[in-house]
Amino acid sequence: MYYIGVDLGGTNIAVGIVNEKGEMLKKGSVPTNAKRPADEIIKDMGELCKKLITEQGITVDDVEYAGIATPGTADHDNGIVVYANNLPFENYPLAAKLSEFSGIKKVLIENDANAAAKGEAEMGAAKGCNNSVMITLGTGVGGGIIIDKKVYSGFNYAGGELGHVVIEVDGAQCSCGRKGCWEAYSSATGLINMTKAKMQETKDTVMWEIAPTLEAVDGKTAFDAMRKNDKAGKEVVDKYIKYLAAGLINMINIFQPEVLVIGGGICKEGENLTKPLQEYIDKEEYARSNKQRTTVKIAALGNDAGIIGAAMLGF
Amino acid sequence: MYYIGVDLGGTNIAVGIVNEKGEMLKKGSVPTNAKRPADEIIKDMGELCKKLITEQGITVDDVEYAGIATPGTADHDNGIVVYANNLPFENYPLAAKLSEFSGIKKVLIENDANAAAKGEAEMGAAKGCNNSVMITLGTGVGGGIIIDKKVYSGFNYAGGELGHVVIEVDGAQCSCGRKGCWEAYSSATGLINMTKAKMQETKDTVMWEIAPTLEAVDGKTAFDAMRKNDKAGKEVVDKYIKYLAAGLINMINIFQPEVLVIGGGICKEGENLTKPLQEYIDKEEYARSNKQRTTVKIAALGNDAGIIGAAMLGF
Repeated sequence: MYYIGVDLGGTNIAVGIVNEKGEMLKKGSVPTNAKRPADEIIKDMGELCKKLITEQGITVDDVEYAGIATPGTADHDNGIVVYANNLPFENYPLAAKLSEFSGIKKVLIENDANAAAKGEAEMGAAKGCNNSVMITLGTGVGGGIIIDKKVYSGFNYAGGELGHVVIEVDGAQCSCGRKGCWEAYSSATGLINMTKAKMQETKDTVMWEIAPTLEAVDGKTAFDAMRKNDKAGKEVVDKYIKYLAAGLINMINIFQPEVLVIGGGICKEGENLTKPLQEYIDKEEYARSNKQRTTVKIAALGNDAGIIGAAMLGF
Repeated sequence: MYYIGVDLGGTNIAVGIVNEKGEMLKKGSVPTNAKRPADEIIKDMGELCKKLITEQGITVDDVEYAGIATPGTADHDNGIVVYANNLPFENYPLAAKLSEFSGIKKVLIENDANAAAKGEAEMGAAKGCNNSVMITLGTGVGGGIIIDKKVYSGFNYAGGELGHVVIEVDGAQCSCGRKGCWEAYSSATGLINMTKAKMQETKDTVMWEIAPTLEAVDGKTAFDAMRKNDKAGKEVVDKYIKYLAAGLINMINIFQPEVLVIGGGICKEGENLTKPLQEYIDKEEYARSNKQRTTVKIAALGNDAGIIGAAMLGF
């Protein structure tokens, strides 16, 4: 049997065909053009599914189901997207629509961060675990909770907003309206804001060579400066890691997952990131004297986590 | 059939007989004398169970199982207390021991905060819910997570430490070693510390009449002062509620439980507490525009939550 996974992003729709072992056999993508009516977007999604099915030399009847990783609040019991920020979905019957446009009988849906967590739990860094939590450090801080191998998203499908946990009352403004959310510190955006603030504070830093203007600052600027023994760069990195650790230890104290997966571009920093994080965890985790402790791992599936997780939603 | 629930506290062992409807039929208690060897404590627990069984006019064979709510990390799969702070338990086979000393064949165990959450989920404020979270505002801030009607405590049984979530990086010192934990602000201890700090800051407050010395300050002092239109008292209450709300909204954003239960002595403040809390939630919750939202409720079972939850662990 075959399974189709769809990762519906604001820019592209990525589709993959996966076998029963979770291996990706074929992959393709088309632009989302997110400002169109929802039906037009899903029509293109359906066409891409049909095209890949044909290219794979199978028929729609060989597909057990398709799974869609979508932004927003995904009612996975009824296949309806309750609401999405960047896409024209409001109580939109996403599952039924893809079924209509592709001919695939059964379609499952899940929020994209949750689907990525499911992918990592089935085929990635948390493979084989019953309980895991995934944190994605991107434009925001995304979260996905896997309990008993299933996505947990609360009674109204809106749970798992792990980035919107306040770690500093009255702290940095978050896009959600609260102040001091973890996301405001530990997202790439948060890191860039910290870097810019430090650069405005001091002219005496290599960061002004790496990024001659504030517009040129990215998530690597401070780390690159640190590698050149820049004091200000190291201070930014130290602060970033301190806040990231605070949020991660919160998640461990709450969930004690077998594996806590961290994903997102910043993870390319490798040991510069994970070593100091682990030191904080060893010092502060509530169950630090336990024999059995949560393992923190870098995500293994990269950009494929959403497709693979979506394809394995029924597993 | 009958079920026995045991709430093992640092001061008393409370035991109750419960019927299949979760109703308490009989209750009794003996002192814990926590400094004795574990076996002596559990012998007394067993004797009390046998005494209540006799008084109820039933036999040990009429008891389906006994459940124990215990402090510490409770391996509920194997009936073993991994570790407890205030009791002489380390890898102690609590379930097998009570079975030996009482003759009750089947014994289940659970951490006390988790058992209270189970009690509230079965018979109390969250009755009928699949997913609920309970927060107890006492000496510390205790937490219990119910998912699919079962206690969730992570892969090593140490999860659900909801009070040990940092809400202010580098904030108030917590007993767990971290700084800025929710518990350091929202426990009765946290409230008392805030009250004392404000009193030391200003002599011009009714709080010095209510509590003539700092030793006389308790969790009611600031609320009582506020009711007498005292400005400083109101400032303490406002700050207390602000931090409590921050932590509660964190829990909603993470879990989106059907019901979030709040227990502990401070809840006697009623609307003075719940009304401003709800205002914060309505303003800040991530899913505040959703139709389906978490309901915050005051715990319904009081001190019986542990016994009833323990008695219903097998439900």
